[in-house]
Amino acid sequence: MKKARLEAFSDGVLAIIITIMVLEIKVPHGTHFSDLKELIPIFLSYALSFLYIGIYWNNHHHMISTVRKVTGNILWANLHLLFWLSLVPFATGWVGENHFSAAPLALYGVILLMAGIAYVILQSLIIKNEGKDCVLKKAIGKDVKGKISPFLYLAAIALSWVNTVCAGLIYLIAALIWLIPDRRIERILHEETATSNE
Amino acid sequence: MKKARLEAFSDGVLAIIITIMVLEIKVPHGTHFSDLKELIPIFLSYALSFLYIGIYWNNHHHMISTVRKVTGNILWANLHLLFWLSLVPFATGWVGENHFSAAPLALYGVILLMAGIAYVILQSLIIKNEGKDCVLKKAIGKDVKGKISPFLYLAAIALSWVNTVCAGLIYLIAALIWLIPDRRIERILHEETATSNE
Amino acid sequence: MKKARLEAFSDGVLAIIITIMVLEIKVPHGTHFSDLKELIPIFLSYALSFLYIGIYWNNHHHMISTVRKVTGNILWANLHLLFWLSLVPFATGWVGENHFSAAPLALYGVILLMAGIAYVILQSLIIKNEGKDCVLKKAIGKDVKGKISPFLYLAAIALSWVNTVCAGLIYLIAALIWLIPDRRIERILHEETATSNE
Amino acid sequence: MKKARLEAFSDGVLAIIITIMVLEIKVPHGTHFSDLKELIPIFLSYALSFLYIGIYWNNHHHMISTVRKVTGNILWANLHLLFWLSLVPFATGWVGENHFSAAPLALYGVILLMAGIAYVILQSLIIKNEGKDCVLKKAIGKDVKGKISPFLYLAAIALSWVNTVCAGLIYLIAALIWLIPDRRIERILHEETATSNE
Repeated sequence: MKKARLEAFSDGVLAIIITIMVLEIKVPHGTHFSDLKELIPIFLSYALSFLYIGIYWNNHHHMISTVRKVTGNILWANLHLLFWLSLVPFATGWVGENHFSAAPLALYGVILLMAGIAYVILQSLIIKNEGKDCVLKKAIGKDVKGKISPFLYLAAIALSWVNTVCAGLIYLIAALIWLIPDRRIERILHEETATSNE
Repeated sequence: MKKARLEAFSDGVLAIIITIMVLEIKVPHGTHFSDLKELIPIFLSYALSFLYIGIYWNNHHHMISTVRKVTGNILWANLHLLFWLSLVPFATGWVGENHFSAAPLALYGVILLMAGIAYVILQSLIIKNEGKDCVLKKAIGKDVKGKISPFLYLAAIALSWVNTVCAGLIYLIAALIWLIPDRRIERILHEETATSNE
Repeated sequence: MKKARLEAFSDGVLAIIITIMVLEIKVPHGTHFSDLKELIPIFLSYALSFLYIGIYWNNHHHMISTVRKVTGNILWANLHLLFWLSLVPFATGWVGENHFSAAPLALYGVILLMAGIAYVILQSLIIKNEGKDCVLKKAIGKDVKGKISPFLYLAAIALSWVNTVCAGLIYLIAALIWLIPDRRIERILHEETATSNE
Repeated sequence: MKKARLEAFSDGVLAIIITIMVLEIKVPHGTHFSDLKELIPIFLSYALSFLYIGIYWNNHHHMISTVRKVTGNILWANLHLLFWLSLVPFATGWVGENHFSAAPLALYGVILLMAGIAYVILQSLIIKNEGKDCVLKKAIGKDVKGKISPFLYLAAIALSWVNTVCAGLIYLIAALIWLIPDRRIERILHEETATSNE
């Protein structure tokens, strides 16, 4: 019951975040395809952020599905995560409108870093609540992706003032590594579900 | 469980897409009915896009109802579809503000085409997952509408530079063919549901 | 199943409609309470429309709860209703920004009238589908409120050019009559639920 | 059934309110971190309001979970609460854009006060409906937080014209007291759930 509303509210907020970013792509005044040229960086930053929010939704979905009891601190840790993600549209707009210049790119990384930290806090609280033998603990395993991500963000933040293309590419790579399917994780989640249904 | 959240998130995103388009209809400064005249193309493009998102919601609803197991690639194929649909408000705004001129109309078609392709990818993945004898495979049959649509979009894109009225009408027709009820499909879905409930 | 998604999507669209209207109340540049004075008509039109969307959500909620089978035409009639309601924020903004002048007030009525007609169409389709002895048919009874409303809207539309205060008051009265609880209806719905649970 | 839709609609509205506030943080034109300086008050007011809406969602979630029967007046009392909360983004924007000056800060308090009153009305209606021995009645106990809050808002409203920093701090404190977990409440809710599941 409680979990259903936690999911519904998170789904609502994530759906709105992913969609209002499109409002940053302002309709150009001209009527030629060439008038869209200036929108390319805005479109690219939109696509990147869409990917990030999509990944967060996907991981959030998997993580919450393993929760059996929702406590007060899980609710607040979840809101804390949503707070940082809600700033993604702002950072995306600043990056896009300024053609991926240094400070906006660095801010983008700071917000991704804070959201990443908020995600780890939520994950730790759930594991603490559910016990060390819980499905989530097994599913994340050594959590390689989770541990690499913050270093990639930090690298990109530092690189923003050196080479913006490099920084942008690192954000892209940091997103793409999450797309590689973790067959092992899906198997563990699948097995556990099968066991609990027996 | 997993399916419920996939539906909830998709419903949220589609509900927001269909509603934020109305923000493009800016309140006119005058206070006479004649001040609404300049809004007619914006209103028409809004109504057309509302119809398209409505059709997508409707078809998505039917398609997902046949899914029994949600896998990682279905989640991503679904997000890919939502990505292209999230660009519909932008294209709609560009079409409306420029009184259905060539390039905006063509871009509108390109986005519909990409969304159509994303829909077919999602559909194929579901059929592949569920097996060749699945309900969805039977329900879509030869998928005449799905096969005609891309050609209509391509025709409209090409015609945008020749005759914008024609191009607009083709978009309208390409939407209206989806409104013709497929009694055969509803029957198959109904029979299958009846069978599975026995 | 099908019904759950119909409700979820409608809830999403109505929640967005009711909330984006607040974006019309633009933050004033001054920092005194007197700077809010110019916002009073915008606030009043917002409150009126909030009431209307609230009433629609409430009635929609009761109506759909009686539906046992969702068909294709119910889905489309529902989208048709949401289409007209999605134009309420636009009409609200026009009314508010122009201090309740004639044409905006009349347009407001036209949109309420169209939404009212869309609601009646949806209601008739549901009764036709569920059969003449269905709960909804009994619950609406002679549907006095439903029959009076369009005449009130028409009266207000006509009066917009004569006396805008009167027109505005009629819209308020047309909303308030829906707030008077229909104890008879709640009883019928309650009895029917009790019977069907036996 | 009825309750599910009440929760879904409230979740939708609260999710939108919490997210559209971010649209007030307009992307700056400059590309330096120093260009973000002017956004600090807007960011602070956003964070404060995010906290408030989060608290309301959290409390609303707990309160509605104790409801067994949704009546007409609960639906309307809930909409009344959502109405005042829907004005939070406006007040937040006014506070932020004017660097926490007197009148905006006072208006912020007025809206919090109205939302607080609406919450108490909803709470009283639920207790009246469910009976004096209901879970909610036991859970809120003497409702110390609920009784202190309005006085804090009134104090902050009055202080707005004297010392804006003090007023802002009181709003922050009035929010933070809700974050202190009520272990006693969670225990009662937990025990009651356990009992009712037996």
